[in-house]
Amino acid sequence: MTRFEVLILGNSSATPMYGRHPTSQVLNFNEQLFLIDCGEGTQMQLFRYGIRSTKINHIFISHLHGDHYLGLIGLLSSQHLVGRQADLHLYGPAALKEIIDLQFKHSDTQLRYNLVFHPTNPHQPELILDTVALKVSSFPLLHRIDCTGFRFDEGKRSAVLRTEKVQQMQVPVAYLKLLKRGIDCVDKNGTVYKAAELTFPPPAARSYAYCSDTVMNEAYFESIQAVDLLYHESTFLHDMVDRAKETFHTTSLEAAQVAQTVGAKKLLLGHYSARYKDLQPLLEESSTVFPRTALSEEGKWFPV
Amino acid sequence: MTRFEVLILGNSSATPMYGRHPTSQVLNFNEQLFLIDCGEGTQMQLFRYGIRSTKINHIFISHLHGDHYLGLIGLLSSQHLVGRQADLHLYGPAALKEIIDLQFKHSDTQLRYNLVFHPTNPHQPELILDTVALKVSSFPLLHRIDCTGFRFDEGKRSAVLRTEKVQQMQVPVAYLKLLKRGIDCVDKNGTVYKAAELTFPPPAARSYAYCSDTVMNEAYFESIQAVDLLYHESTFLHDMVDRAKETFHTTSLEAAQVAQTVGAKKLLLGHYSARYKDLQPLLEESSTVFPRTALSEEGKWFPV
Repeated sequence: MTRFEVLILGNSSATPMYGRHPTSQVLNFNEQLFLIDCGEGTQMQLFRYGIRSTKINHIFISHLHGDHYLGLIGLLSSQHLVGRQADLHLYGPAALKEIIDLQFKHSDTQLRYNLVFHPTNPHQPELILDTVALKVSSFPLLHRIDCTGFRFDEGKRSAVLRTEKVQQMQVPVAYLKLLKRGIDCVDKNGTVYKAAELTFPPPAARSYAYCSDTVMNEAYFESIQAVDLLYHESTFLHDMVDRAKETFHTTSLEAAQVAQTVGAKKLLLGHYSARYKDLQPLLEESSTVFPRTALSEEGKWFPV
Repeated sequence: MTRFEVLILGNSSATPMYGRHPTSQVLNFNEQLFLIDCGEGTQMQLFRYGIRSTKINHIFISHLHGDHYLGLIGLLSSQHLVGRQADLHLYGPAALKEIIDLQFKHSDTQLRYNLVFHPTNPHQPELILDTVALKVSSFPLLHRIDCTGFRFDEGKRSAVLRTEKVQQMQVPVAYLKLLKRGIDCVDKNGTVYKAAELTFPPPAARSYAYCSDTVMNEAYFESIQAVDLLYHESTFLHDMVDRAKETFHTTSLEAAQVAQTVGAKKLLLGHYSARYKDLQPLLEESSTVFPRTALSEEGKWFPV
């Protein structure tokens, strides 16, 4: 089965404490690596967890609060210094380009690889990367400044062969890939191999949605409908709901309500406030509404 | 004796590897904290080593290569978030202000404390902080972009009391501080207490010089004459001297030659290239010329 899982590099909100790092995640889809947000220290975290950063070809930045992007310039510079040659695609708020250009101007840096910048749309959902195997879209969240979430949708998956029937009919190996894609085959003797008979229907395509900083709001619910794994920020416990609203953040209870409302299969919490050394209460609060909740933990992979 | 020592937070050059961090140091002078350079991850390193960042009132940035300042915006933001109120003085290249302003504009941050920016002069040495107890000056280094080093000079130190004579003469306690500062005192009976008789001469004032990225060049030698502790970058071993010159860096052997030429008492190496996992050869090379060399190690305090 195609690998589809996410590694947490940082789960802290704005003020990093207790050894926790600002937000960053690596999504591995079929050995392609996608970096989602890039808080300060991300390049060191990548090294710590054995991720080869030269294998990352797409970086997604949700918004321009420092805890979500201050590791970016360092990472881009290091890619330059280790001799990266492959294009690197960067998706984020338009002003990010201005910040990068200013910093590289003053450090007198001319990147030796091609950095392709794709500004995200803070006003409406948009498909931003479209391949057969994976589609990525951005969608507006509701934060103090422009902010988008990202959704990763696996393409149509291959059907699963009915091994017994395949052996029985002695299907030529060359046809197996085609049959898995639903294509009927005929050999030179006129024998027909029907995909519908030789395969089980394909398993459902999987999806991951990433909601970084946002106040809970119906406006983005449609963009994250029925995802398999929903990462949703939960900066505070619900006794701090007023503070959450004031600062355009979400509580654990609200994150659980979002997951339930949109019909997510699993929920992953993160972006913890520095006021919580022990995170267990956040998990417990969320689980009362949505039992399939997990706490994001740095260095841990979560399957989509 | 007044505390005067430096804590290494990061000793790596541009590409951080092997758990090493980009350049940053904390100088503790008599429980006043001075931050020197602020590479990515500095705020997490401060937390790791138990340094209360709200106690830092002066930050010095040598130049605008990312590995020397990319942790600054995060640190300034966190100071804001934890409710800092004291003024924070920042010394660095003029363009740093432009970078900070742009990033805070896009993150919609209005600092709740006063950030006082002091542009450094890349062309000639300048006294940039002048107190009785400590003077700080900046001086030009020779790097690919404008870069300055910093020198910290302790003010005149107090004389040391000759305890035996003080007891013998029964000197009133109120006079002791004055005597240590070289001031003679007379009590109401006309008894004269002479500083010259009651004290040993004060120990020599101490000094620390910080030479971040630079090619070895006589131009800055005068600024670091006879320092007690010289931190000097040593990015490469001397077999890479051509590469060092090309990239405006220094080898371990050259750092030792600098220390010897300027009459430094001790030398501290740092800013190690990612090509060296084992740092021992850098120390050995330097020690052949200047035996009182030490390797900067993250988390370790070095007395000036």
